[in-house]
Amino acid sequence: MAEKEENEIIEHHVSEEMEKKRSRTRDSHSFLESATISEKEGHSSTQSSHRLLAFSDALISIIATIMILPVAHTKIEPDQELQESLQQLLTTKIAVYLMTFLIVTVAWAAHIRLFQVIERIDDFLALLNLACMMLITFLPYTFSLMATFPEVPLGILLFCACAIVIGLIQAVIVIYGFGHPYLLNDHIQISENQTFYKRHILKIILRVPAFCFFAGIFSFIFFPLSYVLLALVIFLPYITQSLKWCGNKIVGRQEELPESMLLYSYHPSEPLSKERVEAFTDGVYAIVATLLILDICEGNVPDRNEVKEKYQGSLIAALSEFGPEFLAYFGSFVTVGLLWFVHHSLFLHVTKATRFMGLLNTFSLACVGGLPLAYQLTHEFTKNSRNELEAIQISCVIIFFAGIFQLAIWVTALFNERETLHPYVRYGGREHAFMFAKLALYPSVTLTTFFLTCILSKFSAQIFHLMQIIVPFAFLALRVLVSVALSLLKLVFRPAKPMHNALEEDESRLPFNDVVS
Amino acid sequence: MAEKEENEIIEHHVSEEMEKKRSRTRDSHSFLESATISEKEGHSSTQSSHRLLAFSDALISIIATIMILPVAHTKIEPDQELQESLQQLLTTKIAVYLMTFLIVTVAWAAHIRLFQVIERIDDFLALLNLACMMLITFLPYTFSLMATFPEVPLGILLFCACAIVIGLIQAVIVIYGFGHPYLLNDHIQISENQTFYKRHILKIILRVPAFCFFAGIFSFIFFPLSYVLLALVIFLPYITQSLKWCGNKIVGRQEELPESMLLYSYHPSEPLSKERVEAFTDGVYAIVATLLILDICEGNVPDRNEVKEKYQGSLIAALSEFGPEFLAYFGSFVTVGLLWFVHHSLFLHVTKATRFMGLLNTFSLACVGGLPLAYQLTHEFTKNSRNELEAIQISCVIIFFAGIFQLAIWVTALFNERETLHPYVRYGGREHAFMFAKLALYPSVTLTTFFLTCILSKFSAQIFHLMQIIVPFAFLALRVLVSVALSLLKLVFRPAKPMHNALEEDESRLPFNDVVS
Repeated sequence: MAEKEENEIIEHHVSEEMEKKRSRTRDSHSFLESATISEKEGHSSTQSSHRLLAFSDALISIIATIMILPVAHTKIEPDQELQESLQQLLTTKIAVYLMTFLIVTVAWAAHIRLFQVIERIDDFLALLNLACMMLITFLPYTFSLMATFPEVPLGILLFCACAIVIGLIQAVIVIYGFGHPYLLNDHIQISENQTFYKRHILKIILRVPAFCFFAGIFSFIFFPLSYVLLALVIFLPYITQSLKWCGNKIVGRQEELPESMLLYSYHPSEPLSKERVEAFTDGVYAIVATLLILDICEGNVPDRNEVKEKYQGSLIAALSEFGPEFLAYFGSFVTVGLLWFVHHSLFLHVTKATRFMGLLNTFSLACVGGLPLAYQLTHEFTKNSRNELEAIQISCVIIFFAGIFQLAIWVTALFNERETLHPYVRYGGREHAFMFAKLALYPSVTLTTFFLTCILSKFSAQIFHLMQIIVPFAFLALRVLVSVALSLLKLVFRPAKPMHNALEEDESRLPFNDVVS
Repeated sequence: MAEKEENEIIEHHVSEEMEKKRSRTRDSHSFLESATISEKEGHSSTQSSHRLLAFSDALISIIATIMILPVAHTKIEPDQELQESLQQLLTTKIAVYLMTFLIVTVAWAAHIRLFQVIERIDDFLALLNLACMMLITFLPYTFSLMATFPEVPLGILLFCACAIVIGLIQAVIVIYGFGHPYLLNDHIQISENQTFYKRHILKIILRVPAFCFFAGIFSFIFFPLSYVLLALVIFLPYITQSLKWCGNKIVGRQEELPESMLLYSYHPSEPLSKERVEAFTDGVYAIVATLLILDICEGNVPDRNEVKEKYQGSLIAALSEFGPEFLAYFGSFVTVGLLWFVHHSLFLHVTKATRFMGLLNTFSLACVGGLPLAYQLTHEFTKNSRNELEAIQISCVIIFFAGIFQLAIWVTALFNERETLHPYVRYGGREHAFMFAKLALYPSVTLTTFFLTCILSKFSAQIFHLMQIIVPFAFLALRVLVSVALSLLKLVFRPAKPMHNALEEDESRLPFNDVVS
C-alpha cells in the first residue's frame, strides 16, 4: 500500500517535472515558436526574454556584490587595534554594503516576478528594461549619500525619485504587456479574468512608488519617519506574511491559495524562477572570485625602482614579500569555488525554487560577498599575532554563515521535498547522505577552525589558508567516507530490522527506475 | 523554378533549425535525460554541464574586462598634456589590458572547444574545471609582471607554469571523458573511431604546454625567443589557417572538411556554441556597466567635513560640483546598454556562430571594455577645452570600433547567410534593412561626432553625453524611418519593374509562412 502510494507520488512528480521541462523549454528556446506566434499575429519583432533576463541577472548580481570594494579598500592603520578599526568600518561602509545588497535583491525579486508574467519581449520592452537597470545601478550611490549624510533629505529624495521612476516603468511594462497579450505568460494569456490580474499586479507594483512619494515628502518635515516608511516598503510583505502564517498556525489552516494566484502573492512558497536564482548566484560568485585577483594585480606588482634599491634587482626576493598574499588568494579562491560547487550540487537536485529558499540564498550570497573583506583582513595582519587570529575568526564566521544558509536552503526544501527536491536526495534517496555531508562540510570545518584559534595561540593565517586549499580533497574523500559510513550503518542495523531496511532501499530506487526505463 | 528552389532551401533551413533546437534543448535541459542515461549505467552523479559553463563564462568575461580598472584608475596629472600621459599609460597598462583580454579569450575559446566534446560532467570534472578557472584568473598577474619586468624570466616562467598546468588539466579532462564515454558529445559517443578523436584532441591540447615548456627554458638563455614562442602559441592556428585559405584561393578549392571534423579544426567556420558567446558577451557588458557606477560610489560621495567648511553645509552645492560626472555616468551607461541591445538584436537572428564571428565579437568586446577608460577621460577634463576634445575623440574612436566590429559580424554572417542567419534578416527579409540601420547607427553617430569635434571648437563633453542619452530615442525613431524609407523606395522603383518586386516580396515572405502555418 505504502509502496504503491509512493510510486504514484513519484510518477506524479516525474510527470510534473516533464511538464515543467516542457514549459521551460518553451520559455528559454522559444525563439522559433515565438516567431511563429508573432508571425501569425504579424509582430515580427517579438523575442524570447531569455537573454535579456540573463543580462539583467548578471548586472544586478555584480552591482550587489561590487559594493564590497569600498569596504575592502578601506585602509586600516597597522598600529590600530583591529576591533577598533572594524567598528569604524562597520558604522558606514559595511552598512552601505548590506543595505545595497538587500535593496538590490528586493529589486531583483520584483524583476523576477514581473518577467514571470511578461514572458516575451519586443524592442520597446527591452529598452524600458535597460532604463530600469540604469536606475537600479544608481541606487547604491543614493545609499552612500544616505549613510554619509543621514540627516540631509537629499539622499532620501534621490532614492525615492529612483524608486518612483522604477515603479512607473514597471507599471508601463505591465500595461504594455496586457495591451499586447501575446507577450504574456501562457497561463494568463488563456485566462478569462485578465483584467483582474492586471489590476492585482498594478496594485502591488504601484504600492512602492506611493510609499516612496510619502517618504520623500516626510523627508522635509520629519526625516526619521521617511526611513521608517522606506523600511516598511521592504519588510511589509514579510511582516504581513509572517503574521498571516502565525495566525493560521494558531487558528488552524484556513485557506490555501489557488496555484494560479501564487504569482505576486508574497507567499513563502511563491515560485521563483530557478534559472534566474542560479544565474544571479553565478554572477555573485564570479565577481567575488574576480575581486580577489584584481587586488593581487593592482597591489602586488613591485615597483621597478624599489626592486633595484631594496632587493638589489632580485625580483624573486621582492615577490617573496608577497608570499602570504598569494597563499591567501589561492585559499580564498578555493573557498569561493567550492562554495559555488556546493550550491551547484544542491540546485542540481532542486526542482522548484520558492520565495523563502530565494531569501535564504540571498543571505548566503551576502556572506559570500563579504569574502573579499575576509581575504583582505587575513593577509593584512600576518606579523601581528593577535589581530591575525581575530581576522581568521572573522573569516570563519563569514564562511560559516555562507555555508549554514546553504544548508538551510536544503532543510527548507526537505520540508516540502515532494515538490521541491529530486527523488535522489529526499530522505532515503541514494544521494541524501552525501548531499548532507557536502553541505555540512564548510560549517563544520569553520566551526572547528574557530575553536582551534581560541585554543591554539600558534594558529596562523598560513595554516588557515593551507587548510582552505586542502578542503577540495576532502570533497573527493567525502564520497568514499560517506559510502563506507553508510555500509557500516547498514551492517549494524541490518540484524535488528532487515526487512524494513530492504523495503526502504526498494522504495528509494525501484519506482523511479520503473518510470525511467 | 527559382521560387521552388528557394522554398526548398528555406524548408531545409527550418528543419535544420528544428534539429538544432532539439539538440540544444537536449544539451541545456538534459538533467532528467542525463539522469536516465546515468541511471541506466549506474552513475547517479552525472550532470548537465549547462550551469558549470555559464559560471565559467561569467568568471572569464569578468576577468578579461576588470583589468581595465588599473588603467582607468591611473591618475592623470591635470597639468600634463593628455597625449603625453596617454603615451605613458599606453606603454604598460593598456598593453596589459589588451594582452590579458587576448589571452583570456584564447583560453575561453579552448574551454568552449573542450566542452563541446565533453557535454556532461560529474563532480570530479567540476572540480578539475574549477582548478582550471583558478589558474586562468591568475594569468593577468603574470602579464603584469611581464609588462613591468620584461627582461626578468620570472614572469615568463610563472605564465608558462600556469599554461602547462592548465593544458595538463584539460588533457586529464579529455582522457577522463573518453574513459567514461557517457560524458561525451552524442556524435562522438556513437562514432566508431573514438580513439582517433581522442588522439587528435589530445595532440592539439598538449601543443600549448609543449610550446610553453620550451618558452620557459629559453627564458633563461635568450628571453626574446620565449616571447616569440608564446606569440606563436596564440597566433599559430590563425596563421596556418589563413595561409591554407590563401593557398586554396590561389589553387582553387581542394578539400572541404567533413562536418564531424569541424570540432578542433581551427577552421574559420568551426562552430562556436552560440549560447556561450552570448553568456560571455553579457558578462563583459554587465561588468563594464558596473565599473561605471563603482567609480561614482567610490569617488563622488563628498566628505562630511569638506561639505561643512567649503559649502557651508549645503550638500546640494557640493554635489553640483559632481554634475558632469553624473551626466558622464548616464551617457556612458546608455551607450553600454544600447551596444548590448544591438548585440542582442543581432544574435537573436544568428542561428549559428562560427569561429570567425567569435573573433570579431572578441574585438568588439575588447573595445567595450575600454569604455570605462573613455568615461574616466571625458569627465576628468571638463575645464580644459583642448584635452576635453581629445578625450571625446578617444571615446568616439572606442565606440566606433565597438560598433564597426558588430557590423562586421553581421557582414560575415551575410556571406554565408543560409547557414548562419534567420530568414528575416537575410537579403530581402523584412528585418534586413532595420537590422542594418541598427548596426550602422553607432558607427555613423560617432563618426559624425568625431568630425564635429574637429570643426566646432565649442563642442563640449556635456553635449557629447547629452547626445549619448538621446540615442535610444533614435532607436525607437529608426523603425519608423526605415519603414518610411522602404515604402518610398518601393514607390520609386515599382513603376520600373513591378513584377520583379512583387516576386521578391513573395519569396521573402511566403515560403516561410507556408512552413510555419
